[in-house]
Amino acid sequence: MSSGEFDYINWLRKRTPASAGVLVGPGDDTAVLRAPSGPLLVTTDMLLEGSCFRLAEAGPFRIGRKAMAVNLSDIAAMAGIPTAAVVSVGLPRDGGRELAKQLYLGMRKVADEFDVPLVGGDTNSWDGPLSISVTMLGEATPRGPVLRSGAKLGDWIMVTGPLGGSLLGHHLDFMPRVREASRLHELADLHAMIDISDGLAKDLHHICEESRCGAVLHADAIPISHAAKELAAKDGLPELDHALSDGEDFELVFTVSHEDGERLLREQPISGLTLHRIGKIVAKGYEIERNGQRLPLEPRGYEHVMRD
Amino acid sequence: MSSGEFDYINWLRKRTPASAGVLVGPGDDTAVLRAPSGPLLVTTDMLLEGSCFRLAEAGPFRIGRKAMAVNLSDIAAMAGIPTAAVVSVGLPRDGGRELAKQLYLGMRKVADEFDVPLVGGDTNSWDGPLSISVTMLGEATPRGPVLRSGAKLGDWIMVTGPLGGSLLGHHLDFMPRVREASRLHELADLHAMIDISDGLAKDLHHICEESRCGAVLHADAIPISHAAKELAAKDGLPELDHALSDGEDFELVFTVSHEDGERLLREQPISGLTLHRIGKIVAKGYEIERNGQRLPLEPRGYEHVMRD
Repeated sequence: MSSGEFDYINWLRKRTPASAGVLVGPGDDTAVLRAPSGPLLVTTDMLLEGSCFRLAEAGPFRIGRKAMAVNLSDIAAMAGIPTAAVVSVGLPRDGGRELAKQLYLGMRKVADEFDVPLVGGDTNSWDGPLSISVTMLGEATPRGPVLRSGAKLGDWIMVTGPLGGSLLGHHLDFMPRVREASRLHELADLHAMIDISDGLAKDLHHICEESRCGAVLHADAIPISHAAKELAAKDGLPELDHALSDGEDFELVFTVSHEDGERLLREQPISGLTLHRIGKIVAKGYEIERNGQRLPLEPRGYEHVMRD
Repeated sequence: MSSGEFDYINWLRKRTPASAGVLVGPGDDTAVLRAPSGPLLVTTDMLLEGSCFRLAEAGPFRIGRKAMAVNLSDIAAMAGIPTAAVVSVGLPRDGGRELAKQLYLGMRKVADEFDVPLVGGDTNSWDGPLSISVTMLGEATPRGPVLRSGAKLGDWIMVTGPLGGSLLGHHLDFMPRVREASRLHELADLHAMIDISDGLAKDLHHICEESRCGAVLHADAIPISHAAKELAAKDGLPELDHALSDGEDFELVFTVSHEDGERLLREQPISGLTLHRIGKIVAKGYEIERNGQRLPLEPRGYEHVMRD
């Protein structure tokens, strides 16, 4: 949940020796472990008061729900099935017990949506602010997990919903795209996928890095949420900037063959959402096409997404 | 790692519905999940600056090592084999990068001892103190995981090493009893086991609660560490109090049949440690026998362990 995350992950990856039991180590949406029964998915996400949320604004129930939901979203990004969660919590000393209950009820609310049991935890009191870490386990579907590294030249880049302005509420109330991802993976050979937590421009870039390819987005094709428009009206920034670089949409961006992409776009087979084609995978470069012009797209958040 | 942990876990257990995939839910050293290849162990422990450690005293390398080691110890307490870990960290903003590296090197130091890969993580910066959460996965050995709930009437209660005074350094430098636990489980039918994190008097009581039985300890038989003696000389408390109620020894306390116990005691089959018989499982009550007298033993830490 932090912008500094990726440097550290790269540092860590270089120091993680290959291990026979590890199919995918640090750097994808989840790790993938070799298990006799099929790939085992593991992911962890920490939410920190003041950095990832403000308890006074959101309330403990919604924070608990979000802590669980962001991990479910990581499992969704592998087209996996979540199976169990463990939770560790650092509680402020004042009112910690009632806080813990509300957190837990929020966690259960969204975990129950996907029949995910909370199987263990570690609850502590301390003098620091609220700190919550959830670890989620999952299984891959028979087609295997969808990694960030599988995008192919000519692939269509698609997204599962409108983007931007999550700050206005969606980041607390989103429903992780677990079922939608599984269904998509049944219907098409998903080449690469990621959930949008840092913003489209940044997260799609992770796919390009891992797949060693480039991408061109079509500005007019990017679905912009109502919240992005509302925010743009307030802050004067272009709506498109919000859609490209606001974080925590938790929609999925994925790549498929041209043929699969055309079919998905025509058939719109996932109830409750509209699939959008927003660009294509190219050999190199990272650009956005607008009014017939291609501009470099910065793989980063919020400000100055596009150099122009 | 906190005294308030257990109330919350009981609250949580009551609210955790039975699930076909969960063999053991919250309340043992690890959760046990049903996997086609055999039971899957999952545990999580959080270390918090100022509550569980003082960074300035211990340094980040040793804190990282400890964060990993306490989780390994939970896997050991199930006689399991650790297979992979994920880590989430909340870093203070100042010096966070160097801190993260040292933490990681400490984690790797002890993880490498057991060939446990760090497969993923979430690294964040915030305004709070250092917060580290490790989740460890493991497999059960063919004999299955050793739960807290399996103690039987007449069982011997045994411990893997001397207790108390961990505060003087052992709590940072202990080696989790992973190999010793596996070996013991090969050599004998371990009925119940727990690692000593809260102190013998408190942790053995968890075995009694889960096994619905009582225990009698023999005061003279409890192995007292040099550190406990050193601490007792300083603070004037009885050495035995330190051995009974200081936390973080990370030795294992387990129960076996009388016959297995006698054999283990005679053969001392685990290199590098001496097994001690410290008491026996009885139908009810929780007592300690000293100078021919039985006194109630309080299942709690540090002060006033024994009413007398």
